Amino acid sequence: MSLRFEVAATTPEGGRRAALHLPHGSVQTPVFMPVGTAATVKAVPHELLEQIGADARGPDILLANTYHLYLRPGHQTIRRLGGLHRFMSWPRPLLTDSGGFQVFSLAKLRKITPEGVEFRSHLDGSAHFFSPEHSIEVQIALGADILMAFDECVETPATHERTRDSMALTHAWAARSKAYFDAHKHEVPWANDFPDQTQSLFGIVQGGMYADLRRESALRLVEMDFDGYAIGGLAVGEPREVTREMIARTLELLPANKPRYVMGVGYPDEIEEYARMGVDMMDCVLPTRAGRHGLLFRRTQPGESLPITPARTPTSPDETSPTETTPESQSGSIVRMNIKRLEYAEDPSPIDPTCTCMVCRRYSRAYLRHLFVAREPLGATLNSIHNLAFYLDTMSRVREDLMSANSPGQIMATDITQ
Amino acid sequence: MSLRFEVAATTPEGGRRAALHLPHGSVQTPVFMPVGTAATVKAVPHELLEQIGADARGPDILLANTYHLYLRPGHQTIRRLGGLHRFMSWPRPLLTDSGGFQVFSLAKLRKITPEGVEFRSHLDGSAHFFSPEHSIEVQIALGADILMAFDECVETPATHERTRDSMALTHAWAARSKAYFDAHKHEVPWANDFPDQTQSLFGIVQGGMYADLRRESALRLVEMDFDGYAIGGLAVGEPREVTREMIARTLELLPANKPRYVMGVGYPDEIEEYARMGVDMMDCVLPTRAGRHGLLFRRTQPGESLPITPARTPTSPDETSPTETTPESQSGSIVRMNIKRLEYAEDPSPIDPTCTCMVCRRYSRAYLRHLFVAREPLGATLNSIHNLAFYLDTMSRVREDLMSANSPGQIMATDITQ
Repeated sequence: MSLRFEVAATTPEGGRRAALHLPHGSVQTPVFMPVGTAATVKAVPHELLEQIGADARGPDILLANTYHLYLRPGHQTIRRLGGLHRFMSWPRPLLTDSGGFQVFSLAKLRKITPEGVEFRSHLDGSAHFFSPEHSIEVQIALGADILMAFDECVETPATHERTRDSMALTHAWAARSKAYFDAHKHEVPWANDFPDQTQSLFGIVQGGMYADLRRESALRLVEMDFDGYAIGGLAVGEPREVTREMIARTLELLPANKPRYVMGVGYPDEIEEYARMGVDMMDCVLPTRAGRHGLLFRRTQPGESLPITPARTPTSPDETSPTETTPESQSGSIVRMNIKRLEYAEDPSPIDPTCTCMVCRRYSRAYLRHLFVAREPLGATLNSIHNLAFYLDTMSRVREDLMSANSPGQIMATDITQ
Repeated sequence: MSLRFEVAATTPEGGRRAALHLPHGSVQTPVFMPVGTAATVKAVPHELLEQIGADARGPDILLANTYHLYLRPGHQTIRRLGGLHRFMSWPRPLLTDSGGFQVFSLAKLRKITPEGVEFRSHLDGSAHFFSPEHSIEVQIALGADILMAFDECVETPATHERTRDSMALTHAWAARSKAYFDAHKHEVPWANDFPDQTQSLFGIVQGGMYADLRRESALRLVEMDFDGYAIGGLAVGEPREVTREMIARTLELLPANKPRYVMGVGYPDEIEEYARMGVDMMDCVLPTRAGRHGLLFRRTQPGESLPITPARTPTSPDETSPTETTPESQSGSIVRMNIKRLEYAEDPSPIDPTCTCMVCRRYSRAYLRHLFVAREPLGATLNSIHNLAFYLDTMSRVREDLMSANSPGQIMATDITQ
C-alpha cells in the first residue's frame, strides 16, 4: 500500500486541510518541507529541529537531495546502512527529489539523450549517467517515503517548441520511472519493517510558462496514475503572477483525492498563498539559506512604521541587501531583517517579540548580530531555526484557517490528526 | 562577598572533591571548563550544551576570552547589554581570562613596557593598549564570576634570567590588577542582581620551567591574597613530565582552602591526572577544536585490539593523522579516532558503544564520517558535543573517585552538591 491521503476540509477557494499517511508517520497538510540536502538540514541539529515551531513539534517531513546523496556518501552505502531514515537517524517521513534539477543546475558537461543524462560530478568531475530507471533505483535504495519521477527541467525562458519537446521527454521519462518503480518497489531497504507498505511515487507536471502545455502535461500525468502530483519548473525567475497562474491552471486539472506539491517555493507569503489555493506540499532552501546569510523573517508589529523601501519580489536568497519588505501577504506585512546591520548591535529585543520560537525566547538581536559578524557557527544555527519556525508557524496558522473556513457544502471537517 | 570554596573530601595524593559557590551558581570540582571564546562554545547550541554528559547536566561553568570580546563586540557593548551572562544568555557561572595570552599569541606588533602592552588587532590592525588596570576594567564590564589578573606569558624556551624578569613584571601587574579590582569591583553590571556578592579575582603563578621561580612566584602571589590561584605558562610545548613537576611543585605552596586552576590543559588523561593531584579547575579548547577537525575521543573496549602505533604525546589538536593512542591513563587506554578514515564509511556503530552521550545514543560513525567529509556544519556540532561529553564524564568519574577514596584522616566527606 502506498500513501493514504485524507482530506478533512476544503474551502471555496480550493484550499484543503488534509493528512498524508506514510510508512514513517503522518504529515499534516498543507505542509512546508525543510530541505536536508545532504541528509542534514544545514546547521540544524536534529534534536533542535524536532522541537521547532510554536507547537514544538518540528517538521513532519523533510526533503533530501538524490543527486547529492548519490555522489556522497553513495546510495549503495545508504542502502547497506538500512536506508536514509536510519542513516541520518531521522525517524519521520522523508521525500527525495529525482536528482534531475541538480543534474541540470549543478553538474558539469551534461549531455541529454532520450535515454538519460550524462554528467560530471560538481565535486570531482567524475562521469555519471542518470536515466529514469537509475534515478528510481537510487531513490529506492535511499528509501524515502515519497520519491519523484525523473524529469527534464527546461531552461528559462524557452520557446513553446522547445518547452513542448522537453515536456514530451519528461512524459516518456515519467512512464519509465513508474514502470521501474512498480517492478522494483519491493526492494526498499525497510521492506521488512513495514511489510504492508511501499514508497509512493509522484509525477511532475512540466510545460514551462505555457498554459496549454501545462494542461497537456497535467492530463498526461494523471492518465499515468501517480500517487501524487508535483508542479515543477516554476519559481525559476518568472514574475510571481505567472507562477500563480500556472499553479492555478494546473491545480484544477489534478485529482482532488491526491496530494499536490509545488517544488522549490518560496517566500513566506508565497507558501501561504499557494496553500490557500489548494497546494498541499511545498519545499524550499530559503529559510535555511537566508538564515546562513543573516536574513531573518518576521512580521511587522502593530503600529510599526517600516523603512520606506519599495516592495519588490526578492530574486535570490543570497542577496544581503538592507532590510526590505516583501509585498503584503494575507497575514500582514512580512519583514526580512538583515541581522548584520549596525542598528542591531545593542538591540536587546528578540528577532520578533511575538514569536515563540526557541531563538526568540532566549536570544537578542545584539547577540545574533555578534554571532553573524564573528562568523560563529551558532549564528547560522540560530538564524536557520528561527526562519524554519517562521515557516512552520505560517503553515500551522494556514492549516487552522483552512479547517475553520471549511465550507459546509464541501467535505465535512473530520479529525485527521493522530 | 567573593567565591566560597567548600572542600568535601581530600585524598592522600592531594586530590580534592569540592564545590565552588559563585554568584551565578555552584561549580562541582574538579571541573573541566569548556571554552566559549567569542561568547559561544564554537558550534554547540546552548540548548544542547546544557544537556551534555552522562548526567545530562552540562558544564557548570564556561570560560570566555577577554581579548576576543574586547575587540568584538566590545566590552562596553556587553556592559550596556547587562554583562556577558545576559548578552550570551548563559545563566550559569563564567570565567574570563585576562586577555594576556591572546595579546601575546594572536595580536600583531605588540610592544611591552612596564606600563602594559601596545598591540594591533588581529582582525583589522587597529591599535590598542592593555594594562593590568584596563584588563580588569574590561573584565568587570564583562562581569564573569571569576576574572584573572593580567600577566605576561614568557616565550618558550626562555632563559632563567628572562623568565625571572618576566615573572617580576607579572607580579607587579598582579598587584596592580588586584588594586584596580578592589577599587572598582562594585561596578560589575549585575551588582544590583546580587547585592551581597562580587566577582572573584585569581592570581596567576608564572616562573616558566624553573622550580625555584615557580616557588618564588607562588609565595609572592599567595602574599597578595587572591580569591584563587592559577598556574599559567604550562602546556606550551614542554615534555609532560615537566608540566607535571611544575604543577606538583606549585600546588604544595598554594593554600588548601582556595581553588587552584591550571590554564589551557589538556588531553583527557592529563586533566584526570592533574585533578587527582589536587588541581580544581582546568580549561582547554581541545575537545571542541579536535571535534571540528574530526578527531574523537573514546575509551578502548574490553578485549579491543588497537592498531599497533607507537604511543606518543600528541602535540597539536590540528593534526589529522591516523587513529593513534595516547599513553595509558588511569582509566584505561584512550583512543583518538579520526572520523574521516574510510574504515568508518559503513560503520553503523556509535563512536563509543559505552558512551551515553546524545551523539552516541543516536548517530553512527558512518553518518558522522559523511557529515565531516561533506563539510556539513552538523559534523562539527556533533563531534564537539561528543568530545565535551567525554571530558565532562571523565571529570564526573574523577569526582566520584575522589569522594569515595576520601581518607578518614582527612576532612570528612560532606554533601556539597546543592
